[in-house]
Amino acid sequence: MGKILLLNGPNLNRLGKREPDIYGKETLDDVERDVRKVLQRYSHELDAKQSNHEGELIDWLHDANDHYIGVIFNPGAYTHTSIALRDAIQSINVPVIEVHISNVHSRESFRHTSLLAPVCQGQIVGLGTKGYQMAAIFLGERNGEEKNE
Amino acid sequence: MGKILLLNGPNLNRLGKREPDIYGKETLDDVERDVRKVLQRYSHELDAKQSNHEGELIDWLHDANDHYIGVIFNPGAYTHTSIALRDAIQSINVPVIEVHISNVHSRESFRHTSLLAPVCQGQIVGLGTKGYQMAAIFLGERNGEEKNE
Amino acid sequence: MGKILLLNGPNLNRLGKREPDIYGKETLDDVERDVRKVLQRYSHELDAKQSNHEGELIDWLHDANDHYIGVIFNPGAYTHTSIALRDAIQSINVPVIEVHISNVHSRESFRHTSLLAPVCQGQIVGLGTKGYQMAAIFLGERNGEEKNE
Amino acid sequence: MGKILLLNGPNLNRLGKREPDIYGKETLDDVERDVRKVLQRYSHELDAKQSNHEGELIDWLHDANDHYIGVIFNPGAYTHTSIALRDAIQSINVPVIEVHISNVHSRESFRHTSLLAPVCQGQIVGLGTKGYQMAAIFLGERNGEEKNE
Amino acid sequence: MGKILLLNGPNLNRLGKREPDIYGKETLDDVERDVRKVLQRYSHELDAKQSNHEGELIDWLHDANDHYIGVIFNPGAYTHTSIALRDAIQSINVPVIEVHISNVHSRESFRHTSLLAPVCQGQIVGLGTKGYQMAAIFLGERNGEEKNE
Amino acid sequence: MGKILLLNGPNLNRLGKREPDIYGKETLDDVERDVRKVLQRYSHELDAKQSNHEGELIDWLHDANDHYIGVIFNPGAYTHTSIALRDAIQSINVPVIEVHISNVHSRESFRHTSLLAPVCQGQIVGLGTKGYQMAAIFLGERNGEEKNE
Amino acid sequence: MGKILLLNGPNLNRLGKREPDIYGKETLDDVERDVRKVLQRYSHELDAKQSNHEGELIDWLHDANDHYIGVIFNPGAYTHTSIALRDAIQSINVPVIEVHISNVHSRESFRHTSLLAPVCQGQIVGLGTKGYQMAAIFLGERNGEEKNE
Amino acid sequence: MGKILLLNGPNLNRLGKREPDIYGKETLDDVERDVRKVLQRYSHELDAKQSNHEGELIDWLHDANDHYIGVIFNPGAYTHTSIALRDAIQSINVPVIEVHISNVHSRESFRHTSLLAPVCQGQIVGLGTKGYQMAAIFLGERNGEEKNE
Amino acid sequence: MGKILLLNGPNLNRLGKREPDIYGKETLDDVERDVRKVLQRYSHELDAKQSNHEGELIDWLHDANDHYIGVIFNPGAYTHTSIALRDAIQSINVPVIEVHISNVHSRESFRHTSLLAPVCQGQIVGLGTKGYQMAAIFLGERNGEEKNE
Amino acid sequence: MGKILLLNGPNLNRLGKREPDIYGKETLDDVERDVRKVLQRYSHELDAKQSNHEGELIDWLHDANDHYIGVIFNPGAYTHTSIALRDAIQSINVPVIEVHISNVHSRESFRHTSLLAPVCQGQIVGLGTKGYQMAAIFLGERNGEEKNE
Amino acid sequence: MGKILLLNGPNLNRLGKREPDIYGKETLDDVERDVRKVLQRYSHELDAKQSNHEGELIDWLHDANDHYIGVIFNPGAYTHTSIALRDAIQSINVPVIEVHISNVHSRESFRHTSLLAPVCQGQIVGLGTKGYQMAAIFLGERNGEEKNE
Amino acid sequence: MGKILLLNGPNLNRLGKREPDIYGKETLDDVERDVRKVLQRYSHELDAKQSNHEGELIDWLHDANDHYIGVIFNPGAYTHTSIALRDAIQSINVPVIEVHISNVHSRESFRHTSLLAPVCQGQIVGLGTKGYQMAAIFLGERNGEEKNE
Repeated sequence: MGKILLLNGPNLNRLGKREPDIYGKETLDDVERDVRKVLQRYSHELDAKQSNHEGELIDWLHDANDHYIGVIFNPGAYTHTSIALRDAIQSINVPVIEVHISNVHSRESFRHTSLLAPVCQGQIVGLGTKGYQMAAIFLGERNGEEKNE
Repeated sequence: MGKILLLNGPNLNRLGKREPDIYGKETLDDVERDVRKVLQRYSHELDAKQSNHEGELIDWLHDANDHYIGVIFNPGAYTHTSIALRDAIQSINVPVIEVHISNVHSRESFRHTSLLAPVCQGQIVGLGTKGYQMAAIFLGERNGEEKNE
Repeated sequence: MGKILLLNGPNLNRLGKREPDIYGKETLDDVERDVRKVLQRYSHELDAKQSNHEGELIDWLHDANDHYIGVIFNPGAYTHTSIALRDAIQSINVPVIEVHISNVHSRESFRHTSLLAPVCQGQIVGLGTKGYQMAAIFLGERNGEEKNE
Repeated sequence: MGKILLLNGPNLNRLGKREPDIYGKETLDDVERDVRKVLQRYSHELDAKQSNHEGELIDWLHDANDHYIGVIFNPGAYTHTSIALRDAIQSINVPVIEVHISNVHSRESFRHTSLLAPVCQGQIVGLGTKGYQMAAIFLGERNGEEKNE
Repeated sequence: MGKILLLNGPNLNRLGKREPDIYGKETLDDVERDVRKVLQRYSHELDAKQSNHEGELIDWLHDANDHYIGVIFNPGAYTHTSIALRDAIQSINVPVIEVHISNVHSRESFRHTSLLAPVCQGQIVGLGTKGYQMAAIFLGERNGEEKNE
Repeated sequence: MGKILLLNGPNLNRLGKREPDIYGKETLDDVERDVRKVLQRYSHELDAKQSNHEGELIDWLHDANDHYIGVIFNPGAYTHTSIALRDAIQSINVPVIEVHISNVHSRESFRHTSLLAPVCQGQIVGLGTKGYQMAAIFLGERNGEEKNE
Repeated sequence: MGKILLLNGPNLNRLGKREPDIYGKETLDDVERDVRKVLQRYSHELDAKQSNHEGELIDWLHDANDHYIGVIFNPGAYTHTSIALRDAIQSINVPVIEVHISNVHSRESFRHTSLLAPVCQGQIVGLGTKGYQMAAIFLGERNGEEKNE
Repeated sequence: MGKILLLNGPNLNRLGKREPDIYGKETLDDVERDVRKVLQRYSHELDAKQSNHEGELIDWLHDANDHYIGVIFNPGAYTHTSIALRDAIQSINVPVIEVHISNVHSRESFRHTSLLAPVCQGQIVGLGTKGYQMAAIFLGERNGEEKNE
Repeated sequence: MGKILLLNGPNLNRLGKREPDIYGKETLDDVERDVRKVLQRYSHELDAKQSNHEGELIDWLHDANDHYIGVIFNPGAYTHTSIALRDAIQSINVPVIEVHISNVHSRESFRHTSLLAPVCQGQIVGLGTKGYQMAAIFLGERNGEEKNE
Repeated sequence: MGKILLLNGPNLNRLGKREPDIYGKETLDDVERDVRKVLQRYSHELDAKQSNHEGELIDWLHDANDHYIGVIFNPGAYTHTSIALRDAIQSINVPVIEVHISNVHSRESFRHTSLLAPVCQGQIVGLGTKGYQMAAIFLGERNGEEKNE
Repeated sequence: MGKILLLNGPNLNRLGKREPDIYGKETLDDVERDVRKVLQRYSHELDAKQSNHEGELIDWLHDANDHYIGVIFNPGAYTHTSIALRDAIQSINVPVIEVHISNVHSRESFRHTSLLAPVCQGQIVGLGTKGYQMAAIFLGERNGEEKNE
Repeated sequence: MGKILLLNGPNLNRLGKREPDIYGKETLDDVERDVRKVLQRYSHELDAKQSNHEGELIDWLHDANDHYIGVIFNPGAYTHTSIALRDAIQSINVPVIEVHISNVHSRESFRHTSLLAPVCQGQIVGLGTKGYQMAAIFLGERNGEEKNE
């Protein structure tokens, strides 16, 4: 009944090809297919986009405000460096769930800080590509609740 | 078919009574009831324990190794200070999912660091008491998969 | 007419025996007797407890919420390390006055930071065991005032 | 007689819509209209551009060198993170005035540092959207002076 | 119709004599004359004071509360070290604009931090002695607006 | 029988007028009257002084050595920045009790450090204007004891 | 002729089971048996205790003062976080030797700091479970010497 | 026989025009011509690209994986700030040599850190535009060797 | 033939009375008499001033520019905190020699940093009150040399 | 049956003469004699060398690789500053035990960090000159064991 | 026609024997032979020296000033710690190229800082022993150019 | 009547040749001649030594204990890095005066810290080569005084 945006940031187009011991063997297409399947339980549609460009991700977040009821966002490395993306999330009213495939907390120390987490609704880390589905379930159930109120 | 341990750390016995604007109105009993309901879908049982004592939490984690197939752990404030708990998690083989009810990343800076996250399987933050259920779904599906293999 | 809780943390059971040049010659019994005497002026009773266990102190602070009109708390070294105790104080509504016997600011640098002070009503430092009595007078007078309103 | 470039960085396209308690109710169109009005007093024209893309802002700054006598630049969050933009400003000869609408110094600590300020002519902070006009007056008068010399 | 206070802090009495490559050749008398001229457009009067004494600047800020509609303040080096001045500004209701003649951000790193900026209305940096006039225009226009309301 | 000096530092002349939610509604005159009343129980007199000038506070501390048996000192913001005041306290033999009206530990981080506390006898923080009276009681009783010895 | 206390902290009950590549294959029982054998050469007895509770370790250290001539203490992870344990050691007169099985200096950086080492007699690190025996020899020979004096 | 990619990042399009005392007088065309000449000795071809857009550089690095045997990369200022570029390099198998024209180590301190160096094969710094040719020789000889094996 | 200014900062009026184990038994009068004696060898006169007021020291340094050929300056604790004094020294052309009686480098760490040293001609530390005389000899000989040129 | 090298670094030639309250009254000759005696129990020989030259210590460590079965090394102050010595230890295969006579952890903070400890087998600190003997026993027993295998 | 000095610092005498996975299998003799071969193309001679002694390296750099037209310098670990070597390089006029065999940026964090790089002409890192040859080519070509001018 | 040791550390053999704008035109021979002349006034002899080797400087300081009544020591860059030299000075009883020719405080930040100053008698900085003579006068006069006692 509503639309969810699945947003993936830099280097995630290489999912499945890139360091499979860290990121797993699934491709981005697999991820999108699995999330779409989950959202169908809640009668939600999914749009999925990926970009390596910080500016393009900002543009899409701005647009999300008017067309989506929730955003599942894996910002990749931009989570550690982009205050501009943080401002973009803060400037919109749609809830954003930050997802990271690998356990960033057990990797290099510069991956332990997320500039985006404080302005997102929540964060799911280290559950592999299943993390995207958990975020979809959360947004799906959350929306259902709101309908009842 | 397996047993899951729901472990809650310091001050979580006051859930529902303590700062409801941050932690919500649900009590720990509500949380346990909801998680149990989720796990029934996967035919899993739930044991739930809470302690304000760091040492007791360590004891229970040691025991978990032999009796549970997964641990959902909200370590409360000990996540920021306890290397002993970190060592306990690292010394066992059961997967542990760290859950925080509030978005710790948007609170005081000393709450931004988790000593436990690097040795847990993953971390779910800021999804309210729903976060516990997401962890339960993850452990439930994960275990189901394994059965199929 | 009300009850005050005097709570002492780790190593304070050794007061009088432990490094008397820093902590003085009075024992914890002496301290309790003197504070009780002060509170009698305000018709208040005193309960006094000591523990070396962080978890036990948390348990007692939770209980304090329902049974006491004020807490005089010397958390000893836990003031520098325990966010769990901080959360416990923040989760209750009874005013807590933090007391340190020695001037922690003129000792090792790790004693200069108090994690608890920001969530206590106030802090009395370096006035020796008299500091406990000052806290008692403050809570006594404060309560008297409230009665008049 | 000369042309001034008004350059706005990430998220400023949402001015008026985005957190109006921080950034005010005026839109970017309002800002441009007001600055244009000010510059007419000095017979200057105004070109106004906005982008969420760091690379596009760099491209435009390079171009500014040959076509403008001054740049009024609100780099948004890129001021805190972009050494590439800093290098772009340093590589051109046109004077650049950095403008921030809100008082960045009274916000999060990561907003207190400007990587661009050291290579700009000057910086105007916290005067609301009036700050753009102050920068326009400064560039206008500055250019007038030069004519007299 | 209102009165503005121009306040200059330590070493600004030596303006024109002191390091002219950084601070320019204009004296403090020149600055005051130019600001007065600007304010006449808005029918405002100007009082101008300078002191090398932190305490005297605090005294004057306290007095400003009752007699001025705005303060243009170049606190010189005290901006980097004086929390007492910060408290003084925070304790009054008159808007204060902080002005620095040189671009403090391109000088020694200890000049990059302003303790006063967070409690001032705004900050103008690096526009030479013209910065004082920009502050005067801002306060002048701001006051005019208020009359219309 | 002895004389106590009540010394107040920068901005405390504005007590009652300045941010009453932080500092309360009592004026400095009220504070002095209340402390004088307390000291009369111990037959002590009170001299009370306030200055915004660091140098004047140093001068008065030097004088205190010969004429007072104790100093109650609220150094305001100078506690965070003045090593010169610290040296002044260290150079005299009269006991000095540092008092802060608000709970400085729950405010900005630069207020968490006291340069003076290590050389004062003790510190009373966050007990409102009652803190001055607690210091007076401490000095009064301390002196009485000494008479008995 | 005297009694030595062998004290082991958190997670050391899992010795032999826990990460054998770091901590070796010997169990805590093996360790105790070997240390007891060493002490027999010096006619000393051994008491051995282990706890995961910081408070219990503090209690035992307090007791050690009256009943033991030396303590061999492996505080596990508490060495990095517990100022309360440090205070406990400092409050007793029995010499304490700190032992770590693994070379903590070649592991995570948070393991490089020992809060306890400065108040222990000495520290033995990285010699495997043999380190306990070296500590026993040191205490044994030391005591022997004293007998001769 | 193979193809090498010469990749230049932000502001390097202004080479020769931009601060010639730091970066020299050669333009990017000169650089490309010289590197091409060097590679001809090894019968290698050269593709040369420049962009001010972080995202575009990431796109090109991804492409490089399939079409080039080596990359000579001057990331300009992005070397100090872009974890996304680092991830891009780490996700491909082609060897990347980082080149900086100026001696970044003798410039501002924020230029001393390279986020990319740890994932590049090596780094050549401060040899002027000759540094590109050194990288070309290294890649050329390296490839020759491999043929012999 | 020229005049030298001996300037002493906060708390140095208490020399001889204040902590004689650190600062010695000589009073400020003794110091002035000894320095005057040294300067007579070079036919120089001495003016000596002391103040606890930062602002007054700044005023005197400004005046020094026109009336003295050298300044011997013990800024006391202001050396660690006063950028305003630093600016005052930098704004004058007379050479200033910084003198500290005690070895500040072997005292508290906040005494290890001098904000003034970088803008003084040189610094003499730890030679007791003899340090003033060494500075006088240096200025005396230096001036003699210049006469010869 | 094997040879052990006892290596002492800078200033240890002054043992017994240098600050006996920290380092004890035994000379380096005493140390060597005692260690030799211990090693005789294991039929090992001892070579003992001391140098104040970092380079000479590196030379000797290189040589140790071919001629010794273990090294007892007190690197003195070089442990805090010499990465070159660390590399030397890492480049050889002989086990090295680091020994410090005094408890470096209770002294100046720059003595708390050992650059060598991470690449040594283990570290013995604060056991006085007995520490050398403990290292000898460890190496002796270790070697004996290996023979049995 | 000129002479080049190849200088190798601590532990590089063990090249080929020391950790071959990091430093490769070539010995220092191999390196010298290969560099000599490269320099013959430019008719340059090579002197090669190695020392583990910081002082000796300083002596040789001083001498280099009069006898060599360029220095290829691998300072080993001294690059991270020796300001004295830095001063030596700065005190001579011969160009120095710093070479590191391994990619120091991907190793321990204390290897990321080079004190020497800022005063060298340039730095070649991570190209294995080929890095020496690249430096030789650079110096060879550079010298040839100069002859033509 | 006594002997003074003039000790110069690394790179000071190049005095007069090395960066004359920082270190002046005088050679080390000139310095020694001038210091000898000063000491003749006090009937003292001078020995002068220079080394670039840290170990040799330590050796000489050890020897100084028995043969000299004072040491004038310019440790060059070792002052910033050598704890071994610090220990050497601390291990002897002869007073050591640290001298630096240039004003190290106005140079690179790594030159602002002296590890040796805390254990020297005092420090003379920035007075050019005259600083050596000031140290000689201080030691000369000091010794004269002692004779009188």
